[in-house]
Amino acid sequence: MKGTMIYGPRDIRFEDVPEPKIEKPTDAIIRLAVSCVCGSDLWPYRGIQSVDAPTPMGHEYCGYIEEVGSAVTSVKPGQFVVGSFAMSDNSCPHCRVGYQSSCQQREWVSRAQAPYMRVASADGTLVPTSDLPSKEMLPSLLAASDVLGTGWFAADAANVKKGSTVAVVGDGAVGLLGVLSAKQMGAERIVAMSRHATRQKLAKEFGATDIVTERGDDGVTRIKDLTKGIGADCVLECVGTQESMMQAIRSTRPGGFVSYVGVPHGVEFDGEQLFFSHVHLHGGPAPVRRYLPALIDLIVKDKIRPGKVFDLTLPLAQVAEGYRAMDERRAIKALLQT
Amino acid sequence: MKGTMIYGPRDIRFEDVPEPKIEKPTDAIIRLAVSCVCGSDLWPYRGIQSVDAPTPMGHEYCGYIEEVGSAVTSVKPGQFVVGSFAMSDNSCPHCRVGYQSSCQQREWVSRAQAPYMRVASADGTLVPTSDLPSKEMLPSLLAASDVLGTGWFAADAANVKKGSTVAVVGDGAVGLLGVLSAKQMGAERIVAMSRHATRQKLAKEFGATDIVTERGDDGVTRIKDLTKGIGADCVLECVGTQESMMQAIRSTRPGGFVSYVGVPHGVEFDGEQLFFSHVHLHGGPAPVRRYLPALIDLIVKDKIRPGKVFDLTLPLAQVAEGYRAMDERRAIKALLQT
Repeated sequence: MKGTMIYGPRDIRFEDVPEPKIEKPTDAIIRLAVSCVCGSDLWPYRGIQSVDAPTPMGHEYCGYIEEVGSAVTSVKPGQFVVGSFAMSDNSCPHCRVGYQSSCQQREWVSRAQAPYMRVASADGTLVPTSDLPSKEMLPSLLAASDVLGTGWFAADAANVKKGSTVAVVGDGAVGLLGVLSAKQMGAERIVAMSRHATRQKLAKEFGATDIVTERGDDGVTRIKDLTKGIGADCVLECVGTQESMMQAIRSTRPGGFVSYVGVPHGVEFDGEQLFFSHVHLHGGPAPVRRYLPALIDLIVKDKIRPGKVFDLTLPLAQVAEGYRAMDERRAIKALLQT
Repeated sequence: MKGTMIYGPRDIRFEDVPEPKIEKPTDAIIRLAVSCVCGSDLWPYRGIQSVDAPTPMGHEYCGYIEEVGSAVTSVKPGQFVVGSFAMSDNSCPHCRVGYQSSCQQREWVSRAQAPYMRVASADGTLVPTSDLPSKEMLPSLLAASDVLGTGWFAADAANVKKGSTVAVVGDGAVGLLGVLSAKQMGAERIVAMSRHATRQKLAKEFGATDIVTERGDDGVTRIKDLTKGIGADCVLECVGTQESMMQAIRSTRPGGFVSYVGVPHGVEFDGEQLFFSHVHLHGGPAPVRRYLPALIDLIVKDKIRPGKVFDLTLPLAQVAEGYRAMDERRAIKALLQT
């Protein structure tokens, strides 16, 4: 079969790759219904994260079980499933407290921009839907696999509650779904920081009450102005750079909460500055598995439509164009049809 | 009157200073019942924090109201009061959510190693006792002013609950009172990291169930060994150096909580390392005022005896010896009799 590989900055190839096989009795093979390109795929694409050797790409997926290993008991061929980018047994001490993305058996998904993939710890990783979903529902279910689960974690880790004042730094798919998540959790005011008309529009559709276009010091000043000089209760940092992190921390009230959900690139926190900011800080790779059953339920009942972040649809073979469009910010997120 | 000044590293002088006066109608003047030397006073004493000019010292205090400004309504001359090192109005938006040490009117206490001092925002800052306390109770009430309140915040910010497994990095007075606080909050297991026999003994008296003498990598390994490889639920970082901070973070389970309550000196957090540690991080100058009424109540009812951290008592005029004894770790904490 053909799958997606990165060879270096801006060098994405759709080429022959080995077909996935059951390697352990706890594995499953799935046929992907759809796949997509993630904002985090752009780090190596842009050369910010080095690529030492040709590397398979893709970590967001949903689809149909093709085959299961002999030890798999909770899913069976033909079922539709959604899983997280962090494969987990869902039973170790870290999983049991809801941190499945730090599972003691964790493996990272890395071959999902392809028609088929192997899923490790299938019983722990995969959540089946009760019925086969309609075609219209596929983008939203795919979003649950990472961007929605990550945006949801961002809102949860930032302690968003009924009545909270929330700011979201970053208008990528994760930031936008952070807005949607904050809205679902009952936030009263949601400030989306965005300079792009298309993304501002979607942010508002997802529940943003205010848009701030300024960045850095000016962005912080605007958030303070909007909150009577106090700062936001909850700030979701959904970019992963030093500037965005400092903007997030400085926009937060003392005692407030900052979450960060993308791998930080070159970010350093100064201990003394963080100390006097008085914020709570929490983040890490989103434990999407914790939220999957609830998120799938919201999608199946059509209460949320996170699939709206996909504003470009391409055949899988044109995956390289998906990267280009996202890199050039022509698209928020590219859906790949298998 | 005479008060305490620092002129440079290891140069503490007890010398003539101006008598405090009411400067604003919201001020009060108190006569200190006792004062003391803080672990944080050792940063400038050791030359780690620079001293650019002769600087008054001392920020822990309790005592008797001598005089109040015309706008003060909640305390009156003759009453015994305890206050925090962060003077606060207790009514601004930050105070109202319990972060009085980030009060919009915040002033830092800095002249408490003296017989008299001025307290700003007296109505917000000072908590009176219902009766005049006995002499035996004074050390514990003084501890409430900072080290106990700070240790309590450390335990609270690290989310210590009934049944928690807690590790405390640092065996200074704050760390020891972090142990006491964790015990009060119902922790099941409390690991004190200490190499000093006297401090280990007090840690056990305060509720420590285990003592770990190793530091750095070895200390982390010991905590992991004690927790079936999982890590502690809650880790209180009570030192403020890079080594102790890393030890704290690496000793914590994914999804666990790290608090830090001393001003970090030269501490930098690597964003990526913090991200994958999956910990919650919270700290800052302890909002002691939030806890004062409850802590005073516990002391007055003799449920806790935090004053035990004072293992050296000196006349105020010998304050310099108090610094020396703490610097040389001959004393945990020096009480100064006014």
